[in-house]
Amino acid sequence: MTEQRAERLRRPCVAALDAILGEVLPVLDDGFVRVVDYLGDDAAVVQAARVSYGQGTKHVSDDRGLIRYLLRHRHTTPFEMCELKLHVRVPMDAWRQWIRHRTASVNETSTRYSIAIDAAQRTAPTAWRGQAANNRQGSEGLLPAELGAELSRQETELQERARAVYNERLARGVAREQARKDLPLCTYTEAYWKLDLHNLLHFLGLRMDSHAQAEIRAYATVIGEQIVARWVPLVWEAFCDYRGGALSLSRLERGILGALGRGDTEAALAIAREAGWLAVAAETGRLARNRERAECEAKARELGIALPWLDSTRQAADQA
Amino acid sequence: MTEQRAERLRRPCVAALDAILGEVLPVLDDGFVRVVDYLGDDAAVVQAARVSYGQGTKHVSDDRGLIRYLLRHRHTTPFEMCELKLHVRVPMDAWRQWIRHRTASVNETSTRYSIAIDAAQRTAPTAWRGQAANNRQGSEGLLPAELGAELSRQETELQERARAVYNERLARGVAREQARKDLPLCTYTEAYWKLDLHNLLHFLGLRMDSHAQAEIRAYATVIGEQIVARWVPLVWEAFCDYRGGALSLSRLERGILGALGRGDTEAALAIAREAGWLAVAAETGRLARNRERAECEAKARELGIALPWLDSTRQAADQA
Amino acid sequence: MTEQRAERLRRPCVAALDAILGEVLPVLDDGFVRVVDYLGDDAAVVQAARVSYGQGTKHVSDDRGLIRYLLRHRHTTPFEMCELKLHVRVPMDAWRQWIRHRTASVNETSTRYSIAIDAAQRTAPTAWRGQAANNRQGSEGLLPAELGAELSRQETELQERARAVYNERLARGVAREQARKDLPLCTYTEAYWKLDLHNLLHFLGLRMDSHAQAEIRAYATVIGEQIVARWVPLVWEAFCDYRGGALSLSRLERGILGALGRGDTEAALAIAREAGWLAVAAETGRLARNRERAECEAKARELGIALPWLDSTRQAADQA
Amino acid sequence: MTEQRAERLRRPCVAALDAILGEVLPVLDDGFVRVVDYLGDDAAVVQAARVSYGQGTKHVSDDRGLIRYLLRHRHTTPFEMCELKLHVRVPMDAWRQWIRHRTASVNETSTRYSIAIDAAQRTAPTAWRGQAANNRQGSEGLLPAELGAELSRQETELQERARAVYNERLARGVAREQARKDLPLCTYTEAYWKLDLHNLLHFLGLRMDSHAQAEIRAYATVIGEQIVARWVPLVWEAFCDYRGGALSLSRLERGILGALGRGDTEAALAIAREAGWLAVAAETGRLARNRERAECEAKARELGIALPWLDSTRQAADQA
Repeated sequence: MTEQRAERLRRPCVAALDAILGEVLPVLDDGFVRVVDYLGDDAAVVQAARVSYGQGTKHVSDDRGLIRYLLRHRHTTPFEMCELKLHVRVPMDAWRQWIRHRTASVNETSTRYSIAIDAAQRTAPTAWRGQAANNRQGSEGLLPAELGAELSRQETELQERARAVYNERLARGVAREQARKDLPLCTYTEAYWKLDLHNLLHFLGLRMDSHAQAEIRAYATVIGEQIVARWVPLVWEAFCDYRGGALSLSRLERGILGALGRGDTEAALAIAREAGWLAVAAETGRLARNRERAECEAKARELGIALPWLDSTRQAADQA
Repeated sequence: MTEQRAERLRRPCVAALDAILGEVLPVLDDGFVRVVDYLGDDAAVVQAARVSYGQGTKHVSDDRGLIRYLLRHRHTTPFEMCELKLHVRVPMDAWRQWIRHRTASVNETSTRYSIAIDAAQRTAPTAWRGQAANNRQGSEGLLPAELGAELSRQETELQERARAVYNERLARGVAREQARKDLPLCTYTEAYWKLDLHNLLHFLGLRMDSHAQAEIRAYATVIGEQIVARWVPLVWEAFCDYRGGALSLSRLERGILGALGRGDTEAALAIAREAGWLAVAAETGRLARNRERAECEAKARELGIALPWLDSTRQAADQA
Repeated sequence: MTEQRAERLRRPCVAALDAILGEVLPVLDDGFVRVVDYLGDDAAVVQAARVSYGQGTKHVSDDRGLIRYLLRHRHTTPFEMCELKLHVRVPMDAWRQWIRHRTASVNETSTRYSIAIDAAQRTAPTAWRGQAANNRQGSEGLLPAELGAELSRQETELQERARAVYNERLARGVAREQARKDLPLCTYTEAYWKLDLHNLLHFLGLRMDSHAQAEIRAYATVIGEQIVARWVPLVWEAFCDYRGGALSLSRLERGILGALGRGDTEAALAIAREAGWLAVAAETGRLARNRERAECEAKARELGIALPWLDSTRQAADQA
Repeated sequence: MTEQRAERLRRPCVAALDAILGEVLPVLDDGFVRVVDYLGDDAAVVQAARVSYGQGTKHVSDDRGLIRYLLRHRHTTPFEMCELKLHVRVPMDAWRQWIRHRTASVNETSTRYSIAIDAAQRTAPTAWRGQAANNRQGSEGLLPAELGAELSRQETELQERARAVYNERLARGVAREQARKDLPLCTYTEAYWKLDLHNLLHFLGLRMDSHAQAEIRAYATVIGEQIVARWVPLVWEAFCDYRGGALSLSRLERGILGALGRGDTEAALAIAREAGWLAVAAETGRLARNRERAECEAKARELGIALPWLDSTRQAADQA
């Protein structure tokens, strides 16, 4: 630390991010994200880790290795030493999902104090999404453009009606806080949103995921790919490698695949049997449906490992 | 602690709260609050304080005194040792204000997974509030019932139209997550909401306040008066005495009123002058508007203390 | 917002703080505080408030007024938009109090990974504090220098012995994580500590208070007076006026003093009687001790208001 | 929800946990953990998930499946609906690691207000741990008992000396807050500690891990195996299966193993080469050391997958 104490500090600056400071990055039909300010950079993560774990080597390549190590092993506190502050414009229904992340600081335009923004999210005729058959996934595919055109016309009409009612209420003297109550959920709002890099990565991990709703995913993707990638490129690379594309094997899956790897089919079957995965459904005489077993089968397929309870015919079919 | 270690524990129960467990306490036209579970009671606050500050006396009267002392002097951690878990039904726009309190745990009905609740908050003809002249305060007074009747008709029509569009979208196969986008902001939602007593009191202090919007104030009032008052009566009494009705004097106000109390008018005027409170507006030749001075004048009036910069005529008028 | 969107941003810089960036500000015998980085300034608080409450006027004087208004009325979220990051060196026992503030990010030197810092806090012969008679207050006055000299010799001897044992354990091959276990609680540690301005003010309010232990108060005072005062001078001025020197009147106190202000002595007595403040102790025939009443009496004295239950003799004595 | 509203609630009770409420579970030489209170049970997790994801099926077997699904896919909010409140006695150095978990509520015995507990952690002659060769891991193996006996004697002597100095300071009138400063880091303290089940599992995942220091691991193990296992048996089972024993494959590892599974050795090598894993060290002419590659090799070994860059001789050796 002696050396560190002697040196005078300059604030870390990231030229690639400074170049877009304040710039409007458009999202959806009328939303945006802008970087207002930031604190720290890749080196600040390394600096925080080194105060904990000791100085060690200091070359650029080591910084990359250390950041990858920290992220891979979920040593998360050094990532809290960086902060990002954004100005965003976003439909209120997406914003509701957004602010469920409780670790951020927020100042949002108040529609008690100000007239609500005169814009609601509009859907293009070709952008209406179908309900997923699997009900947990949200949406799947797009509706025909012809039907979409009708839905978009209806949307415009409803939004205009809602706005007219809002304006009339204001004209009649209704308090703004009450007049707004029947505006559409997708009315735009604006806010400052600030949080640290650890919590930002957690946000991106959840909201860039294919299961996230398309609207918030659009924002998360811009924040990740256009902002974080510029700001902390080493962290971003590590995040893509270790969070985005990771595959987790449970204790059971690990036991089964490990046993197969050792050639011990009986041990693998014993684990599956013990876990109740091999119960037979009385009606069909085949293996009963089991969500955990199905997830294990998908992972084994990806790794090219044959599972002993799947007959070869079915495995071939599954892989087709 | 020895004694404490020997004793076997039973979980604290509060009969007055158990009596309404699960009961629907109605709020607004179609909302409610229900107690689902709780942890701790008045004695749990005392127990936590005593592990910090030592055992001391143990009679019931002392518990009350200790709780009042803790709350008065903002020793907040013992209040974190109690938890309340509610099931609530609330319009989404009030819910947005609600979940800005980031210290609570929340599970809300998802309108991605389920059809949105078929109810939006309705306003009675006599319940339309006027915009406050002072724009920060939200609302003031009620609009005439005749105008209100028209506004309520219009509200019903708009809500029905929005619901019809929602239903049609679902029928046409639009994903639920997208179909909901133009529902009114005041559509009802349901959630479990759980937080500790310290943060609950903070929530109640802000949301039972006269500046809070009427809708969320209605919920906060039910939670405070019907639930917290039953659950932790000593804490509730102390909260009402020390938070609800408190008056805070700033360093400047304290200096001025203290000087006047000592009879030192010159010192009082010097403080006010130094703070820039006695600047004269060129146009009027009278004291310029100053928000801080105005707040000080209001407090002095309440305490019956005459301020030297107010001539007696004006003071009399102000007090009228 | 339109105007705001068009403008390109530069990061806020505070020259007065940049001037001491990285500089060691000494605290205690061998500790320090250094500013490593920061985000935001006075204007960032204003900017965040204006996105919530609307644009309004924009002159410098207004910024000051708005900041004072926000702080006075506990609108705390705009203060979260600034961050301060420090490098500190502090005795572990003071550090334990410090990190009870859970809203900060922390990276501390690990004595599992590194040899413990070879320094423990030393006490000068004239710096040994006496136990306060009032046991809640900690310390009161200083012990005689002669006794202090003996205590300091003993301290040195014990610290050297503890260090020798630590070094011997390491030499014998004991794991660092175990070898450290008998080092003195006041052994120095170092850490990065980062938190937002709202939570920093809360920390300073508690730790600069006269009831805080001298060691942590020394750190808080340096952070407040040498760092925050330079960084956000308008916020610091408001903090000193509204937090540091404020006086809070409870609902009961307000009721009593207000009644006296209106000249209604009976109403004042009724409130005090109702609250149980006027109970007479059987043994003495005088008013029983009551902590709340005593606090009210102290405030009334400061404001020069005579309380009707105090006879004039006693009041004069109390004021002496 | 209608059905749910009608029903009167009783608070969930867990008989297996009630049976040990308040019971001292010993840890280390003089520490303990006791359950003081709790909120919720396995069913409360399910209840919270169902308000979000819809009612679905309701049999006991489904509860288990749902809990496992939630934990496997990191849907964490329903686990926040349960709380556990403990009374613990723990050496201060272990406690410092413990309270770095910022999401818990804590009330600790204050050694400013009370005399410090007269006990410090003692080490048996056979319990002195050696420093790990790999410096990040802390300890490895035990020192010889003979050496241990000497270290234990020295420990006792130092602890007695430190206590004598403490007592003498108190006798001479030194304030408690200052007298304590040279007590050993391993002096025992007591506290109430309360947090929700999600954050408790996170704590257990980190602190039951083999990399955690032995002392805190001892506490975490008692909390997990003796308390959480009784309280929420379905959650505990899922936690053991999905957190404790999980194996995570990074995007790169997944790509390589997947390619090998498809029989595409070239694609696997290309990924490794691209990642820089196959660089050759000039000095040795063999693959340069690379921590990420080494981790991949260990995982492949466990799954019985041969990596193409390892010659068969070396692979056989590695597997031996």
